[in-house]
Amino acid sequence: MPLIVQKYGGTSVGDPARIKNVAARVAKYRQQGHQLVVVVSAMSGVTDSLIRQAKEIMPLPSEREMDVLLATGEQTTIALTAMALHALGIPAVSLTGAQAGILTDGVHTKAKIRNITPKKVHALLDAGNVVIVAGFQGQTPEGQVTTLGRGGSDLTAIALAAALGASLCQIYTDVDGVYTADPRVVPAARKLDEVSYDELLELAGAGAKVMQLRSVEFAKKFGVTFEVRSSLNDNPGTIVKEETKSMEDVVIRGVSLDKNQAKLTLIAVPDQPGVAARVFKALADAAINIDMIVQNVSHGAPKPITDLSFTLDKPDLLKAQKVIEGLKKEVGFREAVANEQIGKLSIVGVGMRSHSGVAAKMFETLAKEGINIDMISTSEIKISVVIDLAKGEQATRAVHAAFLG
Amino acid sequence: MPLIVQKYGGTSVGDPARIKNVAARVAKYRQQGHQLVVVVSAMSGVTDSLIRQAKEIMPLPSEREMDVLLATGEQTTIALTAMALHALGIPAVSLTGAQAGILTDGVHTKAKIRNITPKKVHALLDAGNVVIVAGFQGQTPEGQVTTLGRGGSDLTAIALAAALGASLCQIYTDVDGVYTADPRVVPAARKLDEVSYDELLELAGAGAKVMQLRSVEFAKKFGVTFEVRSSLNDNPGTIVKEETKSMEDVVIRGVSLDKNQAKLTLIAVPDQPGVAARVFKALADAAINIDMIVQNVSHGAPKPITDLSFTLDKPDLLKAQKVIEGLKKEVGFREAVANEQIGKLSIVGVGMRSHSGVAAKMFETLAKEGINIDMISTSEIKISVVIDLAKGEQATRAVHAAFLG
Repeated sequence: MPLIVQKYGGTSVGDPARIKNVAARVAKYRQQGHQLVVVVSAMSGVTDSLIRQAKEIMPLPSEREMDVLLATGEQTTIALTAMALHALGIPAVSLTGAQAGILTDGVHTKAKIRNITPKKVHALLDAGNVVIVAGFQGQTPEGQVTTLGRGGSDLTAIALAAALGASLCQIYTDVDGVYTADPRVVPAARKLDEVSYDELLELAGAGAKVMQLRSVEFAKKFGVTFEVRSSLNDNPGTIVKEETKSMEDVVIRGVSLDKNQAKLTLIAVPDQPGVAARVFKALADAAINIDMIVQNVSHGAPKPITDLSFTLDKPDLLKAQKVIEGLKKEVGFREAVANEQIGKLSIVGVGMRSHSGVAAKMFETLAKEGINIDMISTSEIKISVVIDLAKGEQATRAVHAAFLG
Repeated sequence: MPLIVQKYGGTSVGDPARIKNVAARVAKYRQQGHQLVVVVSAMSGVTDSLIRQAKEIMPLPSEREMDVLLATGEQTTIALTAMALHALGIPAVSLTGAQAGILTDGVHTKAKIRNITPKKVHALLDAGNVVIVAGFQGQTPEGQVTTLGRGGSDLTAIALAAALGASLCQIYTDVDGVYTADPRVVPAARKLDEVSYDELLELAGAGAKVMQLRSVEFAKKFGVTFEVRSSLNDNPGTIVKEETKSMEDVVIRGVSLDKNQAKLTLIAVPDQPGVAARVFKALADAAINIDMIVQNVSHGAPKPITDLSFTLDKPDLLKAQKVIEGLKKEVGFREAVANEQIGKLSIVGVGMRSHSGVAAKMFETLAKEGINIDMISTSEIKISVVIDLAKGEQATRAVHAAFLG
């Protein structure tokens, strides 16, 4: 019997009525002759409420105890989901991450899956059960409860699909799939039937909130084909897999706009070896992720100076400014200028590898709209530009129209 | 270092502020040089809310899944309690029932503790930690989550105290200890400094809501001395242990009134061998617990008939009436009369073993008050009478005054 792993997020299991809907959907697949493993998240709001209680007790609670605490969220959902299946007359058994054999390292609150021993899951499936597994959690070899961090339930599903050799992994969410652009910004945006791991990675990295990067990376590493689809309807979703031949005909897969970035520019930096290294080492030490980096050509002699710009997540800006300020004497730049009014517009597609002129077309389109480009960065399958935030949506629509109609 | 096991119930850990109070109390004992194992219940209201969600999904949920669900309640509390100790600078580690080595049989929702392997608890204590253990739960040898049923957290504490060889086990609750009578009924009621296991068992069986019978039975079996005391103040509580010499001087330890009983009388039952057996077998098969049984002397010849009365918990009355109605033809009684307006008044004390006249004094006291006795039952350390519910509290005060002043 073909095995499907399904994953339902917090909104899909947000209350008993919705859990019943999930059970009905599982029942439908079972009637079609599938074996099913169902991975569920904590009911929406539960995790936040647990975190609130912990913070009431201590502003910075121990990560080990946070894991013990947060793991209860998914454990509650698995029991209720199993009951909802029983109510439909379907044999179902719930398993915590530990019981499902999900072994992790000991890095609490952001553990990595080391290994899955799916013996128990297999046995329960063979005995005719639907197996409900708590997402987001596992245990160390020493029996400590761990959680996998953000997007952890997706990861549980994809890792289980790999370990069990599932024929399909379905990630249920509140959108119909992956779109060519955010439909709220671009009314002409279309749902994609399929997308490659790399394209989804670039889209996610470019601000499209579909899935956490690590789950897609894991799927890519282990070749797990998965489908992103809605738990609110029966529409087919978007299949995510290694690229196929037919995919090459499409130049651009999607356009995304990231409004959550800020830019820092160091003005009049001495253009000497090691200066950039010192700046980005200090930022990395402060756990600040940098996205785009641009250094202008230097000017001035005999001591040439240059401007160094980079983008980072807006919430990290203050921390980054402090780090940079601390380097002022050592590095010797004139001043650091921050700009939060930026948007990062990206186009993504494996097709652009073999098609020249994609960048030129994008820049032309923006020029026609009278939109100035501030920074540019390119990868094999992505081109990103930083533009004025106020013109971000206009630019997204224009670029989408130029490439995707 | 002397080891204390403390148990805090749902009200004592009802919200983050109360959990902080618990932590402060634990800290005090630790400063006095004790090692501590702290057993906690689910925060008050949490278990009920989980049950409500389950019932929304299915009226009669699977017991295995109920255990998975309910175990999250205590798991939440252990994490928050550990954090509250951390906030006071005290090293503390939380353990679920499974992690604490509490092995049970597989009878879900009312599992029995088979065995405790306290290796992990010992190791954590030796490393200087306060160990927080989830009450009410354990796991089967196969790794299934189980819960111990009502009063399960008390049982966890007492069983751990036995397994760890603790010098004291403290059961924190919202009353100051065990009283000679319910202070709301008898203003003259006094807190007992000590009480024997047997007396507490009879008091609990007689409706005094101090602790579940099974925890006291377990403590008796393993000789665990424990203290029932309040988490709201620092008053010493009541020590529960095997009887001591000094205990023998006291004739009566307490008076209790059980208002939760009903009486069923089968009128004109043929007085033949096997009739009573048939009646009580049918009730037992329906899982109805019977308390007092009285059969009057028979009258009439050649076919003597008698009346058969018994008491049971009020909530079981309807079910019992159905069972009895089904026996009418087979057994051949005239009719079954129910009475919910009864109270069971009991006096309890190991001292009455060696003191004659206790029963007579009790009956005399009730007669003086003009209170009629409906049924009588006696054990070595308890005398119970069934009386009119309306006169229950008056009777309790009078008997308390006669024996306990």
